[in-house]
Amino acid sequence: MKAKILAVAAGVLVAGILASSSRSEAAEIPSERLVRLAELEIDPAQLVAYRAALREEIETSVRVEPGVLALYAVAVKDHPNQIRLFEMYASPAAYQAHLRSAHFKKYKGATAEMVKSLRLIETEPLLLESK
Amino acid sequence: MKAKILAVAAGVLVAGILASSSRSEAAEIPSERLVRLAELEIDPAQLVAYRAALREEIETSVRVEPGVLALYAVAVKDHPNQIRLFEMYASPAAYQAHLRSAHFKKYKGATAEMVKSLRLIETEPLLLESK
Repeated sequence: MKAKILAVAAGVLVAGILASSSRSEAAEIPSERLVRLAELEIDPAQLVAYRAALREEIETSVRVEPGVLALYAVAVKDHPNQIRLFEMYASPAAYQAHLRSAHFKKYKGATAEMVKSLRLIETEPLLLESK
Repeated sequence: MKAKILAVAAGVLVAGILASSSRSEAAEIPSERLVRLAELEIDPAQLVAYRAALREEIETSVRVEPGVLALYAVAVKDHPNQIRLFEMYASPAAYQAHLRSAHFKKYKGATAEMVKSLRLIETEPLLLESK
């Protein structure tokens, strides 16, 4: 019983220290957080179909996967077939689960012939500030 | 009076149509939303100072500017001096206000000699889905 109380007290202490050191990067970004960037070039003749497949994949992932925190897709201005993705996952495990999901595999299969080039960029998150 | 009622009825009808077409991109992303990407290369000898200046600028912007929705900064893995920014603003006006802010000007001045190259990429947002 005493051990349990001590453990709880230690937990409260650690939580207090973490809260007070909120200016440090470690405290602001969970160390497990994973951000991946992707740069894609799409066959212009298949852009409408690609965008529909991407929409379904992104909407489904954010809706049904707890560890998919954000999926942002933009096109480079005046180059609609150049797509950039910003992907945020709760952890590497969440990212791996996403890669194994049925909706992701469906998207990969459906778009394999639409994507002319794909560059994946692994990152170290520095600051992830949002409203 | 009759014209006014008709106008209100038409408005309700249009709102209903817009709400029911929530799968369309126009309904999901406010048309004013502005996303900008930036790719920076930082002088490695000044990376610590640069990151501190970036941290102050990002934290201040998201905290005090209503139109700054998100500022994400990541480093390319194994290339800590290659920084990528993903910036989301409520509107072009919000973005212009950000460029005129004292904290942004301070950051630009303080980091002018730290940034070896800067590429700004304007975008057309396609999908901005997050938890």
